[in-house]
Amino acid sequence: MTATVNESMRNGVDTATLFVTLDAVKAAPQAAKFQFRTDNQWIDGTHSRSTIHEFYGAGEERTHERSFTFDADHPAVLVGRDSGPTPVEFVLHALAACMTAGLANIAAARGIRLTEVRSTVSGDIDLNGILGLDPEVRNGYQNITVRFTVKGDAPADKLRDLVTQSQSRSAVYDIITNQVPVTIEVTTD
Amino acid sequence: MTATVNESMRNGVDTATLFVTLDAVKAAPQAAKFQFRTDNQWIDGTHSRSTIHEFYGAGEERTHERSFTFDADHPAVLVGRDSGPTPVEFVLHALAACMTAGLANIAAARGIRLTEVRSTVSGDIDLNGILGLDPEVRNGYQNITVRFTVKGDAPADKLRDLVTQSQSRSAVYDIITNQVPVTIEVTTD
Repeated sequence: MTATVNESMRNGVDTATLFVTLDAVKAAPQAAKFQFRTDNQWIDGTHSRSTIHEFYGAGEERTHERSFTFDADHPAVLVGRDSGPTPVEFVLHALAACMTAGLANIAAARGIRLTEVRSTVSGDIDLNGILGLDPEVRNGYQNITVRFTVKGDAPADKLRDLVTQSQSRSAVYDIITNQVPVTIEVTTD
Repeated sequence: MTATVNESMRNGVDTATLFVTLDAVKAAPQAAKFQFRTDNQWIDGTHSRSTIHEFYGAGEERTHERSFTFDADHPAVLVGRDSGPTPVEFVLHALAACMTAGLANIAAARGIRLTEVRSTVSGDIDLNGILGLDPEVRNGYQNITVRFTVKGDAPADKLRDLVTQSQSRSAVYDIITNQVPVTIEVTTD
C-alpha cells in the first residue's frame, strides 16, 4: 500500500486525487465553474491593500485556509513610497506561478519527476502610455518574456514539452495574451 | 511655505513631484522605458514562490527598497495545499491596485480629496478550459467585474469620472482587456 501511495505522489502532486478530480468534473461539468475574488482598500497615495479569502467553486462558497493580504504601491521613482510591488509586477508573478503549477501537474500526470523549475519573467513598459504623453503608446506591457529552467528525469525534449503544454493550458497566459471583458461599476455613497 | 507644501500633498500624492516627473518625461521620453521582473521558484506540487526586487527605469537599474516574496498555490479543492492564493487571484489584486493607484493620482491632480476608495474584483472561470475537458472553454477568466466605492469632496459625477479616467490609463486594465505578446524560452541544463 505504501508503494501505491508513494507512486500516487509525484512532484508533490497527488496524481490519484488529480485524476479523481478530472473524472468528477467530466461527470458534472458544472462543478468546474469557479469565481475568484479580491477586496481592495486604498491606503494612501498609490498604496493599496488587497485581501483574498473567499471564492466559489465546485458548487459551493468556499474560503482559503487563511486570509491572504497583499500591499501594492509605486516606488519613489514613480512617485510612491514602495510599500509593495507595483501592480504590474504582480501580473508577472501570476504568470510565472500559473505556468509553474501547470508544469508540475502535467509532469506528474506524465510520470516525470522534476528536480528544479525556475523562471524569470520580465515585462517591458513605456510609461508615456499611462502618463498620457503619447497616444501611440499602450498603457500596459509591450511584451513579456518568460525564461524557464526545467530539470527532471526526462530527456530535454520531454521537459520542453511540459512548458509547451503548460502554456497551452495556463489561465494567466490566456488572460494576458487574449482579451478578457472587464465590467466596472461605481458607487459614490 | 508650509501651506504650499501641504497644498502639494493631496491623497498622499505629492502632486508637485508628480508634475515634475511628468515634465521630466516630456523632456526625455526615453526615461519612461521601464522593465519589471519577477523570479519564481517551484517549491512543490502547485506551490511556487516569486521574488520581486530589481527593475529598470528612468535610465538605470534600480531596486525596490526591500525584496518582496509571494507564494502562490492551489486550494485543496484544486489539488493543492493552499500555501498562497491562486495565480488568477493575484491578477484580480493587480487590477484593483492599479486602478486604485491611478484614481488617487488623478484625483490629486484634479484637486479632489478622497476619503475612501474600496473595490471588490471578481473573475469567473470555467475549469473545463484548463483541465482540457472542453475545447470551447477558454483557460482564463470569462469575465471580470470591478465594483468601486469612491468617496471624496466632489460631486458624484466627478468621482465617477475619476474611475473612467483611471480605467483609460491603467496598465493592468490594458494587459487584461487587450493582448500582450508573451515569449517563452526554456533551458533544460
